Amino acid sequence: MRYQEGLERVLSASARLFAERGYHRSSVRDIARATSLTPAGLYYYFKSKEDLLSLICDHIMELVEAGLDAAMAGATTPEERLARFVRNHLETFSSHMPEMKILAHESGHLQGESRERLSAKQRQYFTRCVEILRELWGSRDGEGPDLRTASMALFGMMNWIYTWYRPGRDPEAGVLAAQVTRLFLRGFLAPQPPAPNPQPRP
Amino acid sequence: MRYQEGLERVLSASARLFAERGYHRSSVRDIARATSLTPAGLYYYFKSKEDLLSLICDHIMELVEAGLDAAMAGATTPEERLARFVRNHLETFSSHMPEMKILAHESGHLQGESRERLSAKQRQYFTRCVEILRELWGSRDGEGPDLRTASMALFGMMNWIYTWYRPGRDPEAGVLAAQVTRLFLRGFLAPQPPAPNPQPRP
Repeated sequence: MRYQEGLERVLSASARLFAERGYHRSSVRDIARATSLTPAGLYYYFKSKEDLLSLICDHIMELVEAGLDAAMAGATTPEERLARFVRNHLETFSSHMPEMKILAHESGHLQGESRERLSAKQRQYFTRCVEILRELWGSRDGEGPDLRTASMALFGMMNWIYTWYRPGRDPEAGVLAAQVTRLFLRGFLAPQPPAPNPQPRP
Repeated sequence: MRYQEGLERVLSASARLFAERGYHRSSVRDIARATSLTPAGLYYYFKSKEDLLSLICDHIMELVEAGLDAAMAGATTPEERLARFVRNHLETFSSHMPEMKILAHESGHLQGESRERLSAKQRQYFTRCVEILRELWGSRDGEGPDLRTASMALFGMMNWIYTWYRPGRDPEAGVLAAQVTRLFLRGFLAPQPPAPNPQPRP
């Protein structure tokens, strides 16, 4: 087996293990069992458990970024770019649910350089979303929605799937992406005032 | 100090501890330190660490449900009910961020009766949201959005705040709630066809 293939197999099996047992409760022995490698064989791929966590996180971010680059090629309008952003995100993560859970639950355990590298990747990815939204609002009248809040709301809609989405039973990623895009796009582009303000509490 | 006050103080301090260190990595000694009680004093409030986790989760769900009951009184339209649902959820959880993280990250460690009790509370709360959306769509033409997906999208927008919201720096809960309500409401109520379908991938 070539190195890259072997590495991907190790990352994927370890991601499932960490998602199920938790990072701190998974031992190197558990990882060896999950990957059918000897502890010595594992160290061919990573130096430490934290190194493995870092590789899992970096790998999934690289995957979603690469998918996005491919998806953006040929998209001519901001609406299309948003639809493709959402679709790529949901397709990538609905087929990598353990990695999604690890980004949410375990990546906070990374420290130092690994932590900075992942944060930089995530910031860059988030910024691509913000830029699409900025372009979407474009030269419409008024200030438009707050872009940080709107982007976070969109990421919330997409990322929360790791808690509820059942592949094979819920709508497939493409259908889900169309629903999320429609929900978000129309809400985002609706003229700002007048907003349906919540009533003051009794 | 009355029992209920003491209990709430213990739950809140323990929630902060679990959110920071993780449930499995927090010992009873850590809990004693965080709450300034002796281990014996702690057992006045709970029988075991799992019992404590269960109390934290039940308590926050009861709080958000009670807030919702109060908020629903006097709301006359489905739009108003949605706005109040979102506002109550965001007000409750933005002032209980550790509890929010614990529901997302740690409540899966509950077993048996505690797990069933929490699931029942969460299902009931989720159903109240679904019912508001069903009523919102009402007698509009067409089938309307899938209610499970739409509700999950709304919960995603709201719950994801535990990963990014900085009280005091980001918009306060009421403003955030108005933004989320507007975003969701207009997207949800927009006529279903024609949907902005994502383009097929190149």
